Amino acid sequence: MIKGETTCKFRNRPPIGLFEPWHTRSPKALHRQLYSAIRRAILDGKLGAGDRLPSSRELTSDLKLSRNTVIAAINQLIVEGYLVSHIGSGTFVQDNVPKASGNRRAAQERAAPKLSNRGDALASTYCANQLEVQPFSSSIADFSAFPVALWQRLQNKHWRMSYHDMLDYSDSGGYAPLRRALAHYLRVFRSVPLDSDQVIITSGTQQSLTLCAQLLADHGDTVWLEDPAYWGAIKAFMSADLHPHPVSVDQDGIAPRTADELMPPRLIYVTPSHQYPTGAVMSLVRRHEILSIARRHQAWVLEDDYDSEFRFSGPPISSLAGLDTDERVLYMGSFSKVLYPGLKLGYLVVPKQLVSAFRLAHYDLNRPGQLPLQAALAEFIEMGHFASALRRARQSYAERRRCLLAALQPCLGPLARITGAEQGLHLCLRLAEDADDVGLAEQLALVGLTVRPLSAYCLKRQDARGLVIGYGYTHLADIERCGPLLARTLLAALQRPHQASRKR
Amino acid sequence: MIKGETTCKFRNRPPIGLFEPWHTRSPKALHRQLYSAIRRAILDGKLGAGDRLPSSRELTSDLKLSRNTVIAAINQLIVEGYLVSHIGSGTFVQDNVPKASGNRRAAQERAAPKLSNRGDALASTYCANQLEVQPFSSSIADFSAFPVALWQRLQNKHWRMSYHDMLDYSDSGGYAPLRRALAHYLRVFRSVPLDSDQVIITSGTQQSLTLCAQLLADHGDTVWLEDPAYWGAIKAFMSADLHPHPVSVDQDGIAPRTADELMPPRLIYVTPSHQYPTGAVMSLVRRHEILSIARRHQAWVLEDDYDSEFRFSGPPISSLAGLDTDERVLYMGSFSKVLYPGLKLGYLVVPKQLVSAFRLAHYDLNRPGQLPLQAALAEFIEMGHFASALRRARQSYAERRRCLLAALQPCLGPLARITGAEQGLHLCLRLAEDADDVGLAEQLALVGLTVRPLSAYCLKRQDARGLVIGYGYTHLADIERCGPLLARTLLAALQRPHQASRKR
Repeated sequence: MIKGETTCKFRNRPPIGLFEPWHTRSPKALHRQLYSAIRRAILDGKLGAGDRLPSSRELTSDLKLSRNTVIAAINQLIVEGYLVSHIGSGTFVQDNVPKASGNRRAAQERAAPKLSNRGDALASTYCANQLEVQPFSSSIADFSAFPVALWQRLQNKHWRMSYHDMLDYSDSGGYAPLRRALAHYLRVFRSVPLDSDQVIITSGTQQSLTLCAQLLADHGDTVWLEDPAYWGAIKAFMSADLHPHPVSVDQDGIAPRTADELMPPRLIYVTPSHQYPTGAVMSLVRRHEILSIARRHQAWVLEDDYDSEFRFSGPPISSLAGLDTDERVLYMGSFSKVLYPGLKLGYLVVPKQLVSAFRLAHYDLNRPGQLPLQAALAEFIEMGHFASALRRARQSYAERRRCLLAALQPCLGPLARITGAEQGLHLCLRLAEDADDVGLAEQLALVGLTVRPLSAYCLKRQDARGLVIGYGYTHLADIERCGPLLARTLLAALQRPHQASRKR
Repeated sequence: MIKGETTCKFRNRPPIGLFEPWHTRSPKALHRQLYSAIRRAILDGKLGAGDRLPSSRELTSDLKLSRNTVIAAINQLIVEGYLVSHIGSGTFVQDNVPKASGNRRAAQERAAPKLSNRGDALASTYCANQLEVQPFSSSIADFSAFPVALWQRLQNKHWRMSYHDMLDYSDSGGYAPLRRALAHYLRVFRSVPLDSDQVIITSGTQQSLTLCAQLLADHGDTVWLEDPAYWGAIKAFMSADLHPHPVSVDQDGIAPRTADELMPPRLIYVTPSHQYPTGAVMSLVRRHEILSIARRHQAWVLEDDYDSEFRFSGPPISSLAGLDTDERVLYMGSFSKVLYPGLKLGYLVVPKQLVSAFRLAHYDLNRPGQLPLQAALAEFIEMGHFASALRRARQSYAERRRCLLAALQPCLGPLARITGAEQGLHLCLRLAEDADDVGLAEQLALVGLTVRPLSAYCLKRQDARGLVIGYGYTHLADIERCGPLLARTLLAALQRPHQASRKR
């Protein structure tokens, strides 16, 4: 106290300069600003321990603030322990307030702690582009036909019916009727033998993959990935610190060689229905081979049944989970392609022996919820709306695909062929091994068309060049309009070999 | 073909036994069952490569199935490559179908691959109990008063207004008006200085923590945790393979000693507003100390502002983020306590220098969505509904707290004192260092009351004994009814010292 009285720097003049600048937006903001300015002055050492603050009357008149504003700021600083008030002598800076070492700018100039190595890699490699809405963007469906009004009706119904337990978290793997409806769908359409107990509702394939990586593998364990690969999966495995081992994809899907088995996998991640991005459909023989390799190495197979909903030609092939005699396959899918991406609901089917561990860890790691939304989805499936949405989508995508294939026809020949058009929402235009697919994609971007270079998805191999062309998001009319432009631009580039190939 | 004809085992008798058992549920199920039985017989080697299948007529009559059922199953096996049909000679098992090695049971008996070490730990330690609805459960709020009808109206409004972009993923950190509303709330009520750009909408605190752990720390890096600690945070750090270093909590919050600094932290995780589970409110001096330690070690501070919404007495203290002069604090919270847990929306405020990396990685790792829900929440906040829900909840919890404190009064004395009742939805009844809090909690469970032993939350220390008693989920009437029972049971146990203490 006495110290305060003797060392006060501001007995006569309020330290207006300390409290600048003002931004006059609202009374609340002013009170916060005065509070911050005084606090900053204390932390920066401009007001020392024991210093006396100008009286609230002085502050009011000199700073042209209302008395309430000043008092509110000071009271807040008193309750937070920056200031102390003594009746009759005034308000003082507390003795025990530590100083910030230097001001904010100086602090920023000191070496700031950075992202971890893992964080650096996660934020700077294999990054999905900004959401794209241009023609021919891939790995996105057209959800403009989603029956919003019906969906809203179903949601309302379940919100009205909701007893309050529905607002809580769910520790049972998800809403039971949704798990039952899904089990039925997967048994019938995807030959996955399962009980609904084995279904775990997740927030989508990213969460399913992360859960598998965290529970089934340890730091540094090897995961076999398709090369080229789906970026989202790479990210999930990176986040779990797994060691990725790329295995080349051929026309029958992932094609492990003897050399690959020198890096024995703990996990094998595959997209057998429609490999992303080459579009290869994994043959039955290859499926059995993968299961047999998994058996040999006591590995788990993560089957991402991506694009299985949209088959246009070729035989339907049983899922790996359906062929699995060992309970070694974890099967996953999501509703983002048939309903809409922002729904954030997907599913993971785990072998019986893993159900309890996965449910427990899923609950502890993610605290799943959204039960009213899950209830609406269960009814959407049970009432047949899912099946008809699927039918409509399949028909619409089939037309787009036909139109795109027709448009690309003139480009095909020894320098360009199409793979992966039997299924899914994109196809792959494969180019010669020395083609400059990155340059081609850039050229197409100049005329407003978004295709992705196949080489951008490659992990290790250098021989895969091509363009990943989506028809899921692009309306038929846009394909009719832009398809010829795509073909013309491609053809011109392919006929200039010095531009189409890149020096290596 | 010729081989098939000569080795066929079933030319005269259809192998009915192979295709048992039937579960007659639906025609579709029967077709799938026959399909599965034949496929199983092939994979198990009971039908060999080249074996001729009984004709569809034989199968129809002997298995008492409709012809369509039989044909559907066989056609599916043909398109999947298990069978091949030759007009005039019949249907044969393909030559190149690999056999499963042994049958399913034998496979299960062989050593199944297990969870990883990380998975084992995640599924078996620090597991949240089953969702509990008994009186005095902690870390759960009462959401029975949540205005469901209003919420539904807001959701409907935004679904009606939704242009289709709202159904997509979001790569911008969340719905902008929600980020703005939150930034305003946090500036005014929690003294967090921020722009709305720094807000990232997550699916809750678990996701916020996981993101921080993955981006800011590497495998084996040290994270300082409060001891005792919140289980959910332990799990998030375990999943990211961090090394936990427990730091004891005292009445002013986490209390690092010099010895702790021998394990320099990369991350410091704290719950300063209301430490879970002791309930300690971190003092201002301690807050500055933590920031200064973080500065010294170039560490990040993860501030989980758990329970900050419910303050009943004591001064409001600025958040750590508000005191931070170094941009070293990441601040997080969620809506699960004020709205409802299953909503799955929370927020993470990151320093400006990290915004772009966090947004990118959050998008790539989680593909966030749920924009219509975010829009409804933004309006809920902007229209003042959030503030009034908070006010109502605060008032209601204050009554419950008062009632619980009154009921516990007779138990207090040298053997039992209350900590952490100034804030939040639970308090902690601290017992002597040798008290058997686990046994006490079991005794209370016998009379239908759920409290948690404080020692269950301890990581390393052995001196913290007590009971974590929640009043958030328990209605006032239940506290009035069960409070005296709680007190009586406690008092009786405390007065029997041989029962209240445990041998060590």
